[in-house]
Amino acid sequence: MTQPSRRSAEALIAPDRSASARALGVPPFLALDVMAEAKARRAAGEQVCHLEVGQPSGPAPRAACEATARLLATGEVGYTEALGRPSLRARIARRYAEVYGVAVPPERIVVTTGSSGGFTLAFLAAFAPGARVAIPSPGYPAYRAILLALGLEPVELATGPSSRWTMTAEMVAAAHAETPLAGALAMSPANPTGVVTAPGDLADLAATCRRLGIWLVSDEIYHGLTYEAPAATALAFDDDAIIVNSFSKYFAMTGWRIGWLVAPERLVRPIERLAQNLVISSPTLSQAGAEAALDDLETPEAYRAAYAANRALLLEGLPRLGFDEILPVDGAFYAYANVARFTNDSSAFAKALLAEAGVAITPGIDFDQARGRAYVRLSFAGSEAEVAEALDRMARWLPKR
Amino acid sequence: MTQPSRRSAEALIAPDRSASARALGVPPFLALDVMAEAKARRAAGEQVCHLEVGQPSGPAPRAACEATARLLATGEVGYTEALGRPSLRARIARRYAEVYGVAVPPERIVVTTGSSGGFTLAFLAAFAPGARVAIPSPGYPAYRAILLALGLEPVELATGPSSRWTMTAEMVAAAHAETPLAGALAMSPANPTGVVTAPGDLADLAATCRRLGIWLVSDEIYHGLTYEAPAATALAFDDDAIIVNSFSKYFAMTGWRIGWLVAPERLVRPIERLAQNLVISSPTLSQAGAEAALDDLETPEAYRAAYAANRALLLEGLPRLGFDEILPVDGAFYAYANVARFTNDSSAFAKALLAEAGVAITPGIDFDQARGRAYVRLSFAGSEAEVAEALDRMARWLPKR
Repeated sequence: MTQPSRRSAEALIAPDRSASARALGVPPFLALDVMAEAKARRAAGEQVCHLEVGQPSGPAPRAACEATARLLATGEVGYTEALGRPSLRARIARRYAEVYGVAVPPERIVVTTGSSGGFTLAFLAAFAPGARVAIPSPGYPAYRAILLALGLEPVELATGPSSRWTMTAEMVAAAHAETPLAGALAMSPANPTGVVTAPGDLADLAATCRRLGIWLVSDEIYHGLTYEAPAATALAFDDDAIIVNSFSKYFAMTGWRIGWLVAPERLVRPIERLAQNLVISSPTLSQAGAEAALDDLETPEAYRAAYAANRALLLEGLPRLGFDEILPVDGAFYAYANVARFTNDSSAFAKALLAEAGVAITPGIDFDQARGRAYVRLSFAGSEAEVAEALDRMARWLPKR
Repeated sequence: MTQPSRRSAEALIAPDRSASARALGVPPFLALDVMAEAKARRAAGEQVCHLEVGQPSGPAPRAACEATARLLATGEVGYTEALGRPSLRARIARRYAEVYGVAVPPERIVVTTGSSGGFTLAFLAAFAPGARVAIPSPGYPAYRAILLALGLEPVELATGPSSRWTMTAEMVAAAHAETPLAGALAMSPANPTGVVTAPGDLADLAATCRRLGIWLVSDEIYHGLTYEAPAATALAFDDDAIIVNSFSKYFAMTGWRIGWLVAPERLVRPIERLAQNLVISSPTLSQAGAEAALDDLETPEAYRAAYAANRALLLEGLPRLGFDEILPVDGAFYAYANVARFTNDSSAFAKALLAEAGVAITPGIDFDQARGRAYVRLSFAGSEAEVAEALDRMARWLPKR
């Protein structure tokens, strides 16, 4: 270990026990702040339409709840192996054959504490401190925050209509040519845009990352939630990609905090060592529930049908309210809509909408620091009644602004 | 954000998508490797005595299981607030009044995904990259690994009989005088030594850290599990200390992955932002169980009585087998014993004991890279029959070596 000089070490010390600069530099996830405000208003007796947070409102698949209750009754809720219960790893591996026709051995599956836990392990395993990682903008804000917290450098690549809001192989190659990247993080279906990357475009991105010798991390957390063509897994194009997934969205198991990685074989042991030390193991009850969920697709498919109905409502209703640009809603459960016609500050717009009309949505600056002031994200993971009511309230409120 | 030069950025890139050096540099947690080997042997039909992993063998408190089952039945297992359910935070705060007579507001309680999750959040919030943090040796090996993974520098301070195996204020002050520290991480009762730091010594350590302007992080995960005097909380001596705790040990809820921090008020919002991004929230079912556990002390107290009986067995039996130096077993559920009389390689000793006698223990090098080859850790968290059987097997095996 290198010994820093006395002088440089002094510079590193938080004077008088202050918070570290890197912690202070992490932006809040505004969607969660809005959720807290919306919860407080509901607790105070207000009727709030919750279109702010990306979580299904219904319960997990019945089989998941039953398996969890059975394990709970046995009392055997000890640590599991750091990489997860062998039976769950095997079952997840089998899902790749079932859903995508892709063979992956159970040894390459890593059970994680949500996709959040997966990102931390994957980033630490694949990237050296200071490494540059390309991420799409707009995009999931935690990417940037996690990378910064772990001493990595997020390189935001702005997408737009010309690439149908997808981070392309060309963008990644151009960024790498300017200053070398260590990896690129793609997401399809994407949050907040709802865009599904076409299989050909994902194949191009995978081939380019391979050619450049940089890691491809593919966030596939919204797989299963598509309304046109299904999303392709990056694993089909690059067996060496790092796949991040979770039971939170399709299986409606957010609070269970359970997800998985598919990792190249040479990363598995490094990830295992990291997990042994940083995590020990993922929640045992949730692992039992997740394994059972994979054999009970009735609930997730019913939810998908409900989201499809909500999506239709929004895609019909929003334009009539004057939302004249809505990004493609191929998948996930978000409509990302331009509000430049109404405001030049989507954050103030969202605050006013919540305070005056009781509709909670998320301002776009969570997802795009540059252009997000002109966008908002509306989640349609709630009930059809909630989405319809939100549209009614906005119809009454917007003309009064 | 600083732009690294092209040359330095290239040096940061894992060539040809290899694992990062920091991941490869994380040592395995040997106790978990031994557990995996022991599990495999048991699965193959062997009878193995499990004295290797620090987890209670019995179930969580009944009230915890019942509350969890009730929540599971409602299906409402969504995300919670990033800092945890308000009712759980309030209940934990109340425990400080009940157990220690220390007042702490609920706002300073952060619910975490086990103490593991607490360490990551606390370290990121309190320490800048490269900061030096003192930890005791022997000590919990994940301290070193987590600090390294997060770009911090562990400074191992060797304890010994002269300080009754406690990291003292003097040791910390001396290390800080040599090269400044940003913090010190203390543990009482300690893993693997079982030592409880005397209240006066903890008060001295707290006062010294305050005087030096460095953070005191106090790992109190084994609180409740003491066999002589109870352990003091660092919060009693320094309201500005960072306390790490968990439901894993005293409440026997390891696989639930639920713990907490007590943080100074000015760290709470930075920790909340980190948690929003890196974690989202801790497992919801486990939060419900944990809250109920705090009102059901019958099970944990019965476990403590069982550990006390196991401890008496070992403290009587081990010396008779020739273990002539056992560290103080004031608390936790470990006996840390010198095996220099039998071997100069505790790792080979532990492997042979498992293979030839079916007794799983942990080699000391997990806890002390310098002196651990002469020590092993025996966990007595299992049943009395298991501990007794392990003593019998060792009595038959040791003379044959």
